[in-house]
Amino acid sequence: MQAHNLQLDSNHELRHLLTIEGLSAAHIIAILDKAEGFFTKASGEIIQTQELQGKTLANLFFEASTRTRSTFELAAKKLSASVLNLNISHSSTSKGESLRDTVRNLQAMQCQLFVVRHSSSGAAHFVAQHINKGAVVINAGDGCHAHPTQALLDMYTIRKHRGDFKKLSVAIIGDILHSRVARSQIHALKALQTGEIRVIGPKTLLPKEITSLGVEVHNNLAEGLQGIDIIMMLRLQTERMQSGLIPAGNAYYRQYGLTHDSLRLANPNALIIHPGPINRGVEIQSDIADSPNAVILDQVTNGIAVRMAVMSLLMENIKRAS
Amino acid sequence: MQAHNLQLDSNHELRHLLTIEGLSAAHIIAILDKAEGFFTKASGEIIQTQELQGKTLANLFFEASTRTRSTFELAAKKLSASVLNLNISHSSTSKGESLRDTVRNLQAMQCQLFVVRHSSSGAAHFVAQHINKGAVVINAGDGCHAHPTQALLDMYTIRKHRGDFKKLSVAIIGDILHSRVARSQIHALKALQTGEIRVIGPKTLLPKEITSLGVEVHNNLAEGLQGIDIIMMLRLQTERMQSGLIPAGNAYYRQYGLTHDSLRLANPNALIIHPGPINRGVEIQSDIADSPNAVILDQVTNGIAVRMAVMSLLMENIKRAS
Amino acid sequence: MQAHNLQLDSNHELRHLLTIEGLSAAHIIAILDKAEGFFTKASGEIIQTQELQGKTLANLFFEASTRTRSTFELAAKKLSASVLNLNISHSSTSKGESLRDTVRNLQAMQCQLFVVRHSSSGAAHFVAQHINKGAVVINAGDGCHAHPTQALLDMYTIRKHRGDFKKLSVAIIGDILHSRVARSQIHALKALQTGEIRVIGPKTLLPKEITSLGVEVHNNLAEGLQGIDIIMMLRLQTERMQSGLIPAGNAYYRQYGLTHDSLRLANPNALIIHPGPINRGVEIQSDIADSPNAVILDQVTNGIAVRMAVMSLLMENIKRAS
Repeated sequence: MQAHNLQLDSNHELRHLLTIEGLSAAHIIAILDKAEGFFTKASGEIIQTQELQGKTLANLFFEASTRTRSTFELAAKKLSASVLNLNISHSSTSKGESLRDTVRNLQAMQCQLFVVRHSSSGAAHFVAQHINKGAVVINAGDGCHAHPTQALLDMYTIRKHRGDFKKLSVAIIGDILHSRVARSQIHALKALQTGEIRVIGPKTLLPKEITSLGVEVHNNLAEGLQGIDIIMMLRLQTERMQSGLIPAGNAYYRQYGLTHDSLRLANPNALIIHPGPINRGVEIQSDIADSPNAVILDQVTNGIAVRMAVMSLLMENIKRAS
Repeated sequence: MQAHNLQLDSNHELRHLLTIEGLSAAHIIAILDKAEGFFTKASGEIIQTQELQGKTLANLFFEASTRTRSTFELAAKKLSASVLNLNISHSSTSKGESLRDTVRNLQAMQCQLFVVRHSSSGAAHFVAQHINKGAVVINAGDGCHAHPTQALLDMYTIRKHRGDFKKLSVAIIGDILHSRVARSQIHALKALQTGEIRVIGPKTLLPKEITSLGVEVHNNLAEGLQGIDIIMMLRLQTERMQSGLIPAGNAYYRQYGLTHDSLRLANPNALIIHPGPINRGVEIQSDIADSPNAVILDQVTNGIAVRMAVMSLLMENIKRAS
Repeated sequence: MQAHNLQLDSNHELRHLLTIEGLSAAHIIAILDKAEGFFTKASGEIIQTQELQGKTLANLFFEASTRTRSTFELAAKKLSASVLNLNISHSSTSKGESLRDTVRNLQAMQCQLFVVRHSSSGAAHFVAQHINKGAVVINAGDGCHAHPTQALLDMYTIRKHRGDFKKLSVAIIGDILHSRVARSQIHALKALQTGEIRVIGPKTLLPKEITSLGVEVHNNLAEGLQGIDIIMMLRLQTERMQSGLIPAGNAYYRQYGLTHDSLRLANPNALIIHPGPINRGVEIQSDIADSPNAVILDQVTNGIAVRMAVMSLLMENIKRAS
């Protein structure tokens, strides 16, 4: 079964969150609306709730990522869930236990929420296939496949700052080929009926089948940025520069870096988002990252609320289904 | 003073949990009954209580074990205690601080529950000798000596599925010589007046003094399994195969592995337990581990409740004594 | 701006805690009084409060220190704050993210309390400069500069056991040159108008400018200890022995170790404090560390309460200021 079928129950409600592919606008909007409710009206801070007290989240990280792990940990604690951090490369699998046995054991230990990060595409899917009822799986990034909570927090941020997706033109810039973030963003933007979606990058970093997703492809930054409302930067994995896929040194920055020069071609007031951590001077000019139209830190805050919303909705859905 | 004396106070109440040796049936049954109360009647899930709020558990792991550490961490959090995880090989001892000073410092930091895992027999005993009143010590495995909470969760599981120990015949299979689990299991089964206890393994893996514990010794699996109600598998430390103590490769599995063939000799419906993580195809045929009579994941769940019960009873006992 | 200016707001209230330098007696006493309130009258244990529920502390450790990290973690949990432990050498900075970006991201993740430990002097100061309003910074040791919470817990301990600072003569013994603890202690003792302050150590371990702090310098232990009420030992970094700065092997102990012989020269009943972990037989005779006048473990307990007090006061101050 494919991830986008596995994640919906018989009533088309979200059972797990594995990928944005196959989600409807209604699914996405329900999550964004729920996330909105976690902010206080007055100060814009995120509230503390008792919603998941007595529940436990297992942070299953097969690939190190302090940043992503921390956002899930903080989101869970805001809902009063307990958190068990598991850096799996250092633990049970070294004793030869299979992923399936690890997951079943954690479920037997009364973990109900599984956050899975893995360098292989399909890992979260695999976990969802082998988990028993009573627990939910959230994909925190699997290989080059998907990173759905990142795309959801991006949608939250765009909606908050610019409103209706139908009227917006959006450009995603960078290494689309290896980016789980870009794939999830495109699926989300399509589901929300975004006016225009472009991807911009060197030919070596654009997958061949990309046009089938209904996006416009540009290899020239100046061309691609013209009249754009939302600029979605990707983080450049600088280790790929050595492999020859990415123009080395300054060459990438000169051709695809977001600078004041290139920014001038987009719409005035174009919103700039980036999944972080940013490489200043590699994919983005340093002071642009700190400018008012760059909402990179707001994305981080929204990411906590969006992850709370996903956890909360998934747990509500299995409760209703049981 | 020996561990089994050190762990009882002047009223013969449990002061620490260091070993099953010397515990009465009443001690063990009190823990099992307490653990039973932590399950909800309706769903069989473990409840969240505020019982140890404001208390702190120090998870002192001198030997890495994500699995065991996690079960204590989760049990403590279910009782609303705070948890401080200390991987001691990476911390204070590298600065030359002694175990005694480490423990006293943690107690001064207001830790009241000490869970100790160490590769040396007697480590938890040592900690209990040097701790001041107001704190309790739980042995989470010391060398080849004891692993009392594992034995208690096994007893819980047997009692739950098969009832009265007096009517049961039990076989423990595997590397008895190096197993702290087996030693603790035998003491618990004896205390509960189990009808018949057998140990099964190659001569190289059976300690010479084993018969003094009142068990029947078998080197032949077929012989040992005849008419058995409860099959207690041990995990094979595959690194011992290299040392020549354990028949290498498939040889062990052919002689002592629990397969459908060997299982046929036990009683129909024989219960299969295993401390996990299981080595599929090394000590047990893979699909037997997933069969209805194998309650390996139920053991894991019971382990949370049993560890909660131990923490709760020990803290009650020192409160009453003070 | 210097740390001691940066840490006070326009009303001279504590905004961050970066250094003892520049704090008034009133600032220090407010913290000690607050800490006192966290002990129960009856048992002298530290209470659990809900004061910082919903707040999150980020333990930013760029230098490993399980002990100090744990005290902040436990103090935060006693106030019901969530704790995010970040061993930074293993995380974001390895991806090339700057300290400034790391801190801003953590603040965006809704962390309000930042505890910073770094091998470079000025690191906590740097964090305080780049943090936005709504969050507070506590220095948990920066290079050879300052370790203010250690000095505060020492003052708490001295006040508790010996009362009025004006009547006391105090000696600090050891490697003053490299000690952030000694610098903070001297500033605190001066602020509290301590009767007499001496520093004792070999010439190689006393900074030249030390007399400008208003302390008396001694290179001879016997001379320096005469008539002293409070003996403040420093921990000897034994790795410095190799460098030739510290007399090697037993030579340091013979000249500057606190032994029964040298102790005889101080006042009867002189209080002995040490920041821990102690090197028995290196800077202090082992049984002196366990004698009634050595209150080393009491310091550890007081350290939890003092850190709670600092967190609590800083959060009150930014709440009032907002």
